[in-house]
Amino acid sequence: MNAAEFRKRGKEMVDYVADYMEGVHKRQVYPGVEPGYLRPLIPDSAPQEPETFEDIIKDVEKIIMPGVTHWHSPYFFAYFPTASSYPAMLADILSGAIGCIGFSWIASPACTELETVMLDWLGKMINLPEAFLAGKDGEGGGVIQGSASEATLVTLLAARTKVIRELQAKCPGLTKAAIMDKLVAYASDQSHSSVERAGLIGGVKLKMLPTDDKFSLRGSALQKVLDEDKAAGLIPFFMVATLGTTSCCSFDNLLELGPICNKENIWMHIDAAYAGSSFICPEFRHLLNGVEFADSYNFNPHKWLLVNFDCSTMWVKKRADLIGAFKLDPLYLQHQNQDSGLVTDYRHWQIPLGRRFRSLKMWFVFRMYGVKGLQAYIRKHVKLSHEFESLVHKDPRFEICAEVVLGLVCFRMKGSNELNEALLEKINKSKKIHLVPCHLRDKFVLRFAICSRTVESVHIQHAWQHITELATELLKKENEQKMNQ
Amino acid sequence: MNAAEFRKRGKEMVDYVADYMEGVHKRQVYPGVEPGYLRPLIPDSAPQEPETFEDIIKDVEKIIMPGVTHWHSPYFFAYFPTASSYPAMLADILSGAIGCIGFSWIASPACTELETVMLDWLGKMINLPEAFLAGKDGEGGGVIQGSASEATLVTLLAARTKVIRELQAKCPGLTKAAIMDKLVAYASDQSHSSVERAGLIGGVKLKMLPTDDKFSLRGSALQKVLDEDKAAGLIPFFMVATLGTTSCCSFDNLLELGPICNKENIWMHIDAAYAGSSFICPEFRHLLNGVEFADSYNFNPHKWLLVNFDCSTMWVKKRADLIGAFKLDPLYLQHQNQDSGLVTDYRHWQIPLGRRFRSLKMWFVFRMYGVKGLQAYIRKHVKLSHEFESLVHKDPRFEICAEVVLGLVCFRMKGSNELNEALLEKINKSKKIHLVPCHLRDKFVLRFAICSRTVESVHIQHAWQHITELATELLKKENEQKMNQ
Repeated sequence: MNAAEFRKRGKEMVDYVADYMEGVHKRQVYPGVEPGYLRPLIPDSAPQEPETFEDIIKDVEKIIMPGVTHWHSPYFFAYFPTASSYPAMLADILSGAIGCIGFSWIASPACTELETVMLDWLGKMINLPEAFLAGKDGEGGGVIQGSASEATLVTLLAARTKVIRELQAKCPGLTKAAIMDKLVAYASDQSHSSVERAGLIGGVKLKMLPTDDKFSLRGSALQKVLDEDKAAGLIPFFMVATLGTTSCCSFDNLLELGPICNKENIWMHIDAAYAGSSFICPEFRHLLNGVEFADSYNFNPHKWLLVNFDCSTMWVKKRADLIGAFKLDPLYLQHQNQDSGLVTDYRHWQIPLGRRFRSLKMWFVFRMYGVKGLQAYIRKHVKLSHEFESLVHKDPRFEICAEVVLGLVCFRMKGSNELNEALLEKINKSKKIHLVPCHLRDKFVLRFAICSRTVESVHIQHAWQHITELATELLKKENEQKMNQ
Repeated sequence: MNAAEFRKRGKEMVDYVADYMEGVHKRQVYPGVEPGYLRPLIPDSAPQEPETFEDIIKDVEKIIMPGVTHWHSPYFFAYFPTASSYPAMLADILSGAIGCIGFSWIASPACTELETVMLDWLGKMINLPEAFLAGKDGEGGGVIQGSASEATLVTLLAARTKVIRELQAKCPGLTKAAIMDKLVAYASDQSHSSVERAGLIGGVKLKMLPTDDKFSLRGSALQKVLDEDKAAGLIPFFMVATLGTTSCCSFDNLLELGPICNKENIWMHIDAAYAGSSFICPEFRHLLNGVEFADSYNFNPHKWLLVNFDCSTMWVKKRADLIGAFKLDPLYLQHQNQDSGLVTDYRHWQIPLGRRFRSLKMWFVFRMYGVKGLQAYIRKHVKLSHEFESLVHKDPRFEICAEVVLGLVCFRMKGSNELNEALLEKINKSKKIHLVPCHLRDKFVLRFAICSRTVESVHIQHAWQHITELATELLKKENEQKMNQ
C-alpha cells in the first residue's frame, strides 16, 4: 500500500469509524458469541499472497464486530468508563505516523518535552502541590504510564530500592534478601487487585487493611497494624491509598493516613485511577486533600478525561527516587545531553523501554475541549449517576449500597445474594445493557457506572426501566415457585 | 467535536500523515533543538475555552516537528528499526475507535480471540514447534506484550514463582525470602539492558556470562558457572538467550544452551526482539534452531515486521506456568466462561490490566502484505546491509567489527576509540544521517542499522559517501595537528 492508496483507505476508515461511533447505540452492547467463535471463521494460517483492503474491511463487520463488547455504547455501564473522543483519535493517528520510540530525550525531544509540560498542565488543572510539577527546575514531575497497575508497581519498586539503600547505608552487613524478607506494604481491603499483584511481583508482603463502614481506610487501622508489625520486627515501607475504589468508589482518608506515613518514613502512593479526573472540578477537588503528604500520585485520563487508552498519568515529588531504582545506561542509549539536568529520559521512569508519543492525545484533548469543556463532561456524568440513584431510591424493592459521590452507583434488590445474582444474570443475558457486580463485605452488589461519552438521561431511564421489568419478572417467578411448594 | 467534524478533520489528518510519510526524507533526520526548547513555545497551562483544530495542527508543524527525531526517514540508521506501515496505521485507527480494554475474554471476545489466532498464524510463519501454539486445545499459546522488556520480566517472574512453589512443595519450611536469596538467573554479557533490569525488579541475582569471539554465549560458559553456583548453594532457575543482540546482532548458541537448561530444570527464555522477524524467511530460520528447548520465546513485530509499535509477541509452552504466577480474580473481573478451558483472560499473562486491540494490526499487515510481501521486505533490508558492508570492506581505512547476518553493520575506522568517537560526533552534528554507537569488548564501534521501510540503495550510497567525506576531513585535521606538533 502506497501513500496514494493510504489517502483513499484512510479516509474510508475515518468514515467507518464515524459511522461506528454514530451508530454504536444500535448495536447489541454485549456480544452473543460463544468461546472459540472466531477461529473457525478465518483461515488456519496467514495468506502467502496479498489480499485487498476491501476483503479485510468486509471481514471486520462479519468476523470482528459480532465479538466486540461495545465499551462506547450508551448502554454500557460495566467496569469503569474508558475514554473515547475524536480529538484523542486524531492525535493518535498523528502519533502512529511519527512513530518515534521515545525512550530517551534524544530519541525524540518533542515526545519527551511535550509529555513533561502536559503533565504540568494536568497537575495544575487538579491543583496538585507545586512539589509534584517539573516546572523549569523542580525535583518532581510527571510521566505517562500505560496503566495504573504499572504506576503502582513502579512506585512500589522505587520505594523498595529506597528503603533497602537506606538500611544498607546504616548497616552495611545487611543483605537485600534479609531486608526484603521483613518489608511490608499496605493497602485497603477495597484496593484494586493490581495492588496485591504489585506486592507479589515485588516479592514483598502486602497487607490489606480493614476499612470503616464507608469502605474507607482510616488512620487508626493503619496505626494499629504498624505498631504490631514493627513490634514483630517487620519494616513498613509503602502504602497505597485509593481514591475511588473499583468496587464502590470509596475514598481512603488521606488526611489521617498521610501524616502517619510521613512520620514513619513510609512511601505513600495514591491510586485515583477512576476518580482522579473529577478533581479538575473545584467542587470535587476536596476529595484530593491530603495529597500533599504523598510521594506519588496517579490517575487515568484514559478512564474519564476523554484521552483514549493508554494514558495513565503519574507524578512524583522526587524524580531521583524513581530514576535511581531503574537506571541502567548501555552505550547505545547514552547521549550527550543526558546529564544536563534539563533533560528527562523517561525510560528510567517505567517498566518498558519503548514508549509511544502519547502526550499528543492530552494536548489535542485539553485544547479542543478546554478545561471548561472537560469539567462540563465530568459534571454531566455525575448528574446522571445521581439521576439513577434517585430512581433506585424511589423503588422500595431496591437499596443503594454505598454513597454515590461520582459516576458509580452500587445497588441491589433487598433480599438474598442469590436473588441479585439471578437479576444480574437476567440483565446480562438479555444483552440490552451491560453491568458487572462486586462484593461489598458479604453482599453481592450490582455496579452501575456511567461510562459512555454519549450517554444521556434517556439511556439511564431506559436502563432503569429494563432493570425493574426484569426484577418484576424475577419476583413473579419466585412467588410462583413459593406458591407451588 | 462531533462525528461530522471528525469526518472532515480525520481526512485532513490522513492527508497530513501521507504528506509526512512521503516527505520525511526531506526533513532533517535528527533535530537541532536544545533541551528545554518546547516549554517556552506553549502556554503555561491548559486553555479554559476550546481552541480550534486549525490552531492545533498549525502548532504541530511549528512546535512538534522541529523536535522530532524522524525514525522513518530513510537516513535514520540508529538503534533498530521501528515498524511503520499503512495497513498497521489503518488497523490502529479502527482499534482506537473500538476502544475496548481487553483484559478478559468477555471484555471483548474478538479482541482476545483474534490475538490468540494471530499468534498462531505468526508462530506458523516462523515454524515454531507445535507446543508453542494455542490451537484448539494446546497447552501453550501466544500473547502480545508491549515490549520485549515486559516479556523478559513476565517470564522471569513466572519462572521465579514456579521454582519457589516446587521448592516449597519439597521443603514446606522454606520461606520465599530464603529461596529468593539463592535464586540466580543468567544471560550473556551482550544481552539487552532490560534483562539486567528484569533481575533487579524481580529481586534475584542475574549473572552476565562471557561470550565467545563471535559474541555468542556458549554451553561451556553456562555449564562452568552453573557448576560453581550450585557448589556455592545457589539455585539456578532462569536463562535468557538472545538471538540478535542489540550491540552487534550476535546469536547465542541455543543448541548448546537448550539441553543444559532442560537438564538442570532452568526456564529458558529466548529474546529475539530484533532478529525474530527474519525467521519468516526459510534461509534465516536456522538461526532459531534450538527453540524447541525453550520455555518461552519473544520477538518484536513492531521492530521489523511492519506492525507499528507496540506489538511484542511472546509464546509459552505451558500457559499454566504464566497464569499461575499472576492470577488474582476479584469479582468485578470474573465472568461465566472463564474456566471453560476455551477461554483466555490475557490479564493473567501480563503486567498491566488493560490492553488495546493490537492484533488488528497484525491481521491487517499479514493480509495486506501476504507472507511473500513480508519476506521480500526482510530480504531487501538484509541485502542493503550487505551492500553497506561491501562499501566498508572496500575502504582500507575502515573495518567490519562483527559478522553481518541480518540488517545491522558494526564498523569503525581502524585506529583509536577517540578517532571513532570524533567521527560519530561529526556524523551526528551534521545531522544528515543518524547513527548510535556501541562497545564491543574495549572497542568503540559505530552501528549502521537498516531501519526505514522506504530506505533504498541510493540512501545507503549517500550515507556511505557522507561518512567517508567526514572521515577524510577528520584524518586531514588529525594529520595537520600532527604536523604542527
